[in-house]
Amino acid sequence: MSDLDRVLATIDADLDAALERLFATMRLKSISTDPAYAGETRACAEWHARDLAGIGFDAGVRDTAGHPMVVGHHRAGTGPSALFYGHYDVQPVDPLELWDADPFDPKLVTRADGSKMIVGRGSADDKGQLMTFVEACRAWKTVTGGLPIPVSVLLEGEEESGGVNLPPFLDANLEELRADHAFICDTNMWDKDTPAITTSLRGLCGEEIVVHAASRDLHSGFYGSAAANPNHILARIIADLRDADGRITLPGFYDGVPELPEHLRESWAKLGFSEAEFLGEVGLSVPAGEKGRSVLEMTWSRPTCEVNGMGGGYQGAGFKTVIPAQAMAKISFRLVFDQDPARVRASFREHVNARLPKDCSVEFHEHGSGRAVAFDTSGAVFQRTQGALTNEWNKDAAFIGGGGSIPVTTLIKDKLGVDVVMVGFGLTDDAIHSPNEKYDLRSFHKGIRSWARILGALAG
Amino acid sequence: MSDLDRVLATIDADLDAALERLFATMRLKSISTDPAYAGETRACAEWHARDLAGIGFDAGVRDTAGHPMVVGHHRAGTGPSALFYGHYDVQPVDPLELWDADPFDPKLVTRADGSKMIVGRGSADDKGQLMTFVEACRAWKTVTGGLPIPVSVLLEGEEESGGVNLPPFLDANLEELRADHAFICDTNMWDKDTPAITTSLRGLCGEEIVVHAASRDLHSGFYGSAAANPNHILARIIADLRDADGRITLPGFYDGVPELPEHLRESWAKLGFSEAEFLGEVGLSVPAGEKGRSVLEMTWSRPTCEVNGMGGGYQGAGFKTVIPAQAMAKISFRLVFDQDPARVRASFREHVNARLPKDCSVEFHEHGSGRAVAFDTSGAVFQRTQGALTNEWNKDAAFIGGGGSIPVTTLIKDKLGVDVVMVGFGLTDDAIHSPNEKYDLRSFHKGIRSWARILGALAG
Repeated sequence: MSDLDRVLATIDADLDAALERLFATMRLKSISTDPAYAGETRACAEWHARDLAGIGFDAGVRDTAGHPMVVGHHRAGTGPSALFYGHYDVQPVDPLELWDADPFDPKLVTRADGSKMIVGRGSADDKGQLMTFVEACRAWKTVTGGLPIPVSVLLEGEEESGGVNLPPFLDANLEELRADHAFICDTNMWDKDTPAITTSLRGLCGEEIVVHAASRDLHSGFYGSAAANPNHILARIIADLRDADGRITLPGFYDGVPELPEHLRESWAKLGFSEAEFLGEVGLSVPAGEKGRSVLEMTWSRPTCEVNGMGGGYQGAGFKTVIPAQAMAKISFRLVFDQDPARVRASFREHVNARLPKDCSVEFHEHGSGRAVAFDTSGAVFQRTQGALTNEWNKDAAFIGGGGSIPVTTLIKDKLGVDVVMVGFGLTDDAIHSPNEKYDLRSFHKGIRSWARILGALAG
Repeated sequence: MSDLDRVLATIDADLDAALERLFATMRLKSISTDPAYAGETRACAEWHARDLAGIGFDAGVRDTAGHPMVVGHHRAGTGPSALFYGHYDVQPVDPLELWDADPFDPKLVTRADGSKMIVGRGSADDKGQLMTFVEACRAWKTVTGGLPIPVSVLLEGEEESGGVNLPPFLDANLEELRADHAFICDTNMWDKDTPAITTSLRGLCGEEIVVHAASRDLHSGFYGSAAANPNHILARIIADLRDADGRITLPGFYDGVPELPEHLRESWAKLGFSEAEFLGEVGLSVPAGEKGRSVLEMTWSRPTCEVNGMGGGYQGAGFKTVIPAQAMAKISFRLVFDQDPARVRASFREHVNARLPKDCSVEFHEHGSGRAVAFDTSGAVFQRTQGALTNEWNKDAAFIGGGGSIPVTTLIKDKLGVDVVMVGFGLTDDAIHSPNEKYDLRSFHKGIRSWARILGALAG
């Protein structure tokens, strides 16, 4: 029996204990965007540092201007070194009433078909995913007393809230974190049977605006029409962001956005993606974006503009005839290829200012900024990772595009000078960022086994 | 010394006690739109019934399908009978953090210039106003043992929440409530020195829409562009409600809206209204409505469309890259002349449905419906009321238009067949429906004296 076989057997035997460890971190409410949870976010970082130390990592919590990082090194061994990145913070849980159970009381739920899923905030994004890597390390350590290659782990606590402290942290610790390869586990499989390596990600430009009109809320019967209504101003700003064909109207927005290269178009066409199924799974049927583009293009290679939140005036039960003093919107742009987040932000702010009556004002708040990224998959690390995944899942691992944004990918590539291999075991129905977030037990179990194989393959 | 002089002297001497009574009702959280306050709303009704009984009214709380009515009769005496209407319910108090003090702990606050104001929810809308009438009755009763004319009082508990139970209540009690004249105290003075009788009011059509798209909240990185975003749909619906000239675009909306009659235009021009001051008082300077219309036209004789509340997606601190499953808006139309609320509602719903993607749905909720109303001021009751007001304030009482909607006015006219005299002592800076609502102590004091004079004049 090879070391790898014994490692895989250990993973199978240890699954219940691995689940208990995952539940322990999921119980910690590490909602990074809400200052009320700062203490519990730190407690979560400390939990992970202790957990890594228990596997033999030289691990600790590292302060930043915001939530802390967790850094651990297991430098023994030969072969190419690997830096693994994950994030231990989670999204807020509102609207709480749409959860079937307490989001911070994780549970294993059995479906009608007998399959099981881990339910709770952070199950898929990203605690369940990051623990697949950690558990793979634990199994190697248990079986062989070491890891196949030198490994460093970096866990961020602000991935869901802008991550402004990550760039200075990387700058300040470049030598310590440098490695031959970088891995991130925060992406999806192609489908529940097909593993995938995500080789491109979109960038992000997040912006919040608050439109101010009157100095106080007004009675709409007395001031209606005469007084500027921030709800109307905001609606105009948002409505004007897209034209009738679904194109984003900001001047220069599509600069640096080429048509999809033919080889990618062909490769994606072979994936057998069903737009009807993709939308049907969430109760929709009509692609809402740019006319004449496929859904895969819309979500992988075209830039988007989405209003993630907006609000103004009375939203409670009943009715209140008020003209609010202010209204707000949180808007994010997903960027592709060479789009520059700073230029997009400037263009958006001009768009807003041009629609603002002279007696109103607007506040702008920046929420996240990152360029798109894409990797050449011909290198050995991509090929070995792909081979390990194919062995575990008995199905060819796919190279795919990603619609989301993981700014750390760009940062690691730019600052550490290495390509980033994004391997994840999430599924599209995991409901990350939503009520009833889940992670299939199969994703967790075979995810651990996958990383065990990848670590072995990199040493070989 | 005449009876009236002794009544006025009693009012002056009794002011502190009258204030204590007002504070007692203001402490009761009669927020009719929020079911959580149903018990306290009823307690407020009971307080008013007891208070009226204490003055000698045959008074009681009368159940409806919603919050109860308070009805009291003081039928002794001769002369024309009067029905007085007020409402004991109040608006919600959010956003609570913008209040300088507990909205339900009323206080007398002294300004830098020595003048005083009553601060708290309901001070002006409508508890302070309705108590001016009740206190005038109390003073007449104290001095003369009776009232100058037969008086009935009807206090509603759902004026701020649609008032759907008022029409059936009036229908069921027509004979009991019938009177020669009707009075409402829920309007403003022209300015702080000039009393006013409001002779026209706009109608209202209130509508709430909830746009539904996906079956759950989605991650905007995975579904952006491809999935319909209810925030965008709502923004388009709202933005399209007005054209570039500020006109409302609903087909047929301006049917039944004539140009202002010349004599009203002239009469209003004489009021010396300053648009700059009106808007400047709330920090604005640019009339936002229909181009080429004066602010008085916009707020008194032109219909409006205002979004009183809207919301969708994540509105908390930080950022959440979500595409929400739904988004909502509360929209009210103020109606004038012969506009039909039912036709406006139907036209609005067509407007919404026409902008709804095929895979989305919308819920419509009706919130209030009433036609505009206008009275001929040449009748004796208007002239006598005007004279009494002029005597109290030493300044000619003005006949003015009103921008708000008091559906009961139309109901009383239609069902009881009498004109309604709307006299109120509110000021534009009372901040009704807003944080830090106040009622000038002078409005309260001279308001009581005004009603004492009006009651006397009607008997004379």
